[in-house]
Amino acid sequence: MALRTRLTERLGIGHPIISAPMALTAGGRLAAAVSAAGGFGLIGGGYGDVGWLEREFAEAGTARVGCGFITWALVKHPPALDAALAHAPAAVMLSFGPPVPFAPRIKAAGVVLICQVQTLEHVREAVAAEADIIVAQGAEAGGHGMERATFTLVPEVADYLAAHAPETLLVAAGGIADGRGLAAALMLGADGALVGSRFVASTEALVDPVLQAVAVAADGDATGRTDHAGGSQWPAPFTRRALKAGGPRHDEPGAADQVGEAAGLIHDVRPVGDLLSEMVREAERLLGDKVSGVVRTA
Amino acid sequence: MALRTRLTERLGIGHPIISAPMALTAGGRLAAAVSAAGGFGLIGGGYGDVGWLEREFAEAGTARVGCGFITWALVKHPPALDAALAHAPAAVMLSFGPPVPFAPRIKAAGVVLICQVQTLEHVREAVAAEADIIVAQGAEAGGHGMERATFTLVPEVADYLAAHAPETLLVAAGGIADGRGLAAALMLGADGALVGSRFVASTEALVDPVLQAVAVAADGDATGRTDHAGGSQWPAPFTRRALKAGGPRHDEPGAADQVGEAAGLIHDVRPVGDLLSEMVREAERLLGDKVSGVVRTA
Repeated sequence: MALRTRLTERLGIGHPIISAPMALTAGGRLAAAVSAAGGFGLIGGGYGDVGWLEREFAEAGTARVGCGFITWALVKHPPALDAALAHAPAAVMLSFGPPVPFAPRIKAAGVVLICQVQTLEHVREAVAAEADIIVAQGAEAGGHGMERATFTLVPEVADYLAAHAPETLLVAAGGIADGRGLAAALMLGADGALVGSRFVASTEALVDPVLQAVAVAADGDATGRTDHAGGSQWPAPFTRRALKAGGPRHDEPGAADQVGEAAGLIHDVRPVGDLLSEMVREAERLLGDKVSGVVRTA
Repeated sequence: MALRTRLTERLGIGHPIISAPMALTAGGRLAAAVSAAGGFGLIGGGYGDVGWLEREFAEAGTARVGCGFITWALVKHPPALDAALAHAPAAVMLSFGPPVPFAPRIKAAGVVLICQVQTLEHVREAVAAEADIIVAQGAEAGGHGMERATFTLVPEVADYLAAHAPETLLVAAGGIADGRGLAAALMLGADGALVGSRFVASTEALVDPVLQAVAVAADGDATGRTDHAGGSQWPAPFTRRALKAGGPRHDEPGAADQVGEAAGLIHDVRPVGDLLSEMVREAERLLGDKVSGVVRTA
């Protein structure tokens, strides 16, 4: 059997898994490896550093990947979107900020538009921007986000889309680190899953190995949401999930303390293709071979 | 097909659904109706008011139900446990506080011991207390709880129990309001689901109809966790999820503003038996008929 969903059909991929475009952590090597394993990889364009972006698109080589941006940062660094589009990415994902100012250029380029949302108001904005795929991100996710949980946000967004934008696909994010999470996401009404923290603990991630070791050792109780997003630039109402005790390198900016609540489900650092394949096999086993049709018609 | 799990076997019930023992809201009528529909009903003994408890056990009549208590409150009102045990409940559930002081009397009475947990440390306490069933409660739940989310807490607890107490069953709580949530809970490794908020919006709940109307109208973004548990008695670290704008009757103490993040999945007030049956039918449809065995061996 295979987990065929609307997402695998729309993106032309083998498994309904997208890797999160974690800023500066998800480079071209990670994204390419995810796509090579049958998922869909996203380069973490983050705050819009064009030099980093060019380097990581080069690292991805000829792999079919996409790119994600922090939307409010694109406002300050508009050339980053042009740089990404010049590489003819299969998709561009916008997170954290109204997508409308950038959506038309992405759509006009024939590129799949993915919008990440944290509230129902964000969903309405994403639908207005004609998003092809909406990623509903729960507070379980590492790094930036808001307070809604994956478990209730996903079915509520699914109901909204069924009523108002039935052609828009839905991907669940936040807390999905194994086949159980993937299977649960599909049951909740998602067409697929976006995976971040589990892939931080991969050999391809651009991340401090000390953070990987800390994430492997931590349980899910070791992370928490900060009261603020970190850094003076981040607008309200976004906050951040990170290790409560702080990261291994306090003197470094960025993601050196960021891991999600799924830390308690992460027990090793392995090649991302292995992680993805295992996740799919476990979900297939849990769901049984009748689920493919069920997911499509749910 | 039917959703047969270790929980249905252990409790001798038809469907793997337990109703939450919501203090003063889950009376005997609600609990009895849940059991009559094939689930397992729990009377919300809450803070240990023996008069209320006697009345609600009488309301339950001859139905096979259980009773839940707020553990730290039992310390102050120990006769409440005796009163409950005198009714030979099928199970007693302890929430919010170390269960060890009360567990031996419950076990000695031959009553199934259910312990609700919010952290891994709570799981270790519950296993030490020889809990038969552990309810892993995520922050999505209405009313009292903590910060961990259902989506990651459940599989992490499942892994702990598989390694350390494989005979202890696991029930997921927090955010489960329809068949999608039930199916997802089973996929995450639970043997069943505990349902609260969805049953607040039932005709049998002892709750202000104005709160029911507010819950039906609200989306999931309308609730949030308070910084404190409410009331001077509640110990740290428990907090509370309630409507952000407050409840319909600010002058009344108790649960008049308490509903979970699943509010966005609640669209009507109906008999609890109807709600439960629909939840089961939807989960069966989503899971297909192969899942029964999968759940058991997961």
